[in-house]
Amino acid sequence: MQTQAYEVLARLKCPPEARVRIIEEIARGTGTVNGMIGGQVVDLEAEHSKPTPEMLEYIHRSKTAALITASLVSGGLYAGAKEKEGTRLRAFGLAIGLAFQIVDDILDVTQTSEQLGKTAGKDTASEKATYPALFGIQKSQQKADELVQSAFAELKDFGERGENLKELARFLVERKN
Amino acid sequence: MQTQAYEVLARLKCPPEARVRIIEEIARGTGTVNGMIGGQVVDLEAEHSKPTPEMLEYIHRSKTAALITASLVSGGLYAGAKEKEGTRLRAFGLAIGLAFQIVDDILDVTQTSEQLGKTAGKDTASEKATYPALFGIQKSQQKADELVQSAFAELKDFGERGENLKELARFLVERKN
Repeated sequence: MQTQAYEVLARLKCPPEARVRIIEEIARGTGTVNGMIGGQVVDLEAEHSKPTPEMLEYIHRSKTAALITASLVSGGLYAGAKEKEGTRLRAFGLAIGLAFQIVDDILDVTQTSEQLGKTAGKDTASEKATYPALFGIQKSQQKADELVQSAFAELKDFGERGENLKELARFLVERKN
Repeated sequence: MQTQAYEVLARLKCPPEARVRIIEEIARGTGTVNGMIGGQVVDLEAEHSKPTPEMLEYIHRSKTAALITASLVSGGLYAGAKEKEGTRLRAFGLAIGLAFQIVDDILDVTQTSEQLGKTAGKDTASEKATYPALFGIQKSQQKADELVQSAFAELKDFGERGENLKELARFLVERKN
């Protein structure tokens, strides 16, 4: 399936310059160095150990934020985004990706399984590396809110074109499951 | 590793038009539809069954020839090959890919393990779909020779630039292990 994905990307209906950039973004975002696979590996290795804040940020940045960022930047490139707009989208994606993961970790400890629609408390049970475990719930919530504010700031030059992205950012932190 | 490969390809030092074509070639050559993975799947499924000649050609075309073709066409595109030259390289690759596989199957039944440097007779033991099993050794050898002649014909406009490829084709069918 992964192979087929790149075949599809290589044939996208946009200029070849944009296509190679999109392929690079998605390969990097899903890959082993700073991408999803790399983050997932470190995340699994970190279970049952006491991760440092730096390690935790690496995990979230790679596992979650890199994929969200790759999606945002690829969409932008496909729509003809300039290099500077791509940089904004990347910074926005990184911020909401981290916020998303922090909120996810908070919900795991504050909500019931019924509210979540999946088993709550799994992170604690598996001694998973999370923001609430390291910093407590209040500081984690504060960090998530700050990240969303910084994400909004990245969109200021986008005007109306940024409205849907703002809505997305709000949804990610305000969701209850 | 596969992800990283596409990241590298997206950054090749050649025009973006060539890069997307190379990515497409390699994704298709290694993929599930008519590529290596697809051929490997059908090959494994065909063990212990009586494959038709069409099925056998699909297996060889996909498993072996598609990968050789992808390598040849990608190399050509990287070096600035025109569309017509790419078509020639593709036809050349398909022919030597099939020839390579037929010779491989012949050697498996005609050579000793010592000569091959690997266990001989494995295909017979696993009742694998092969040309010699379907057509006999003599007809298989004839088919391989014909394929190499048709491969040579594809190179006629290449002049001296085709010499290394001819050498490669000769090596593939004349090898004894």
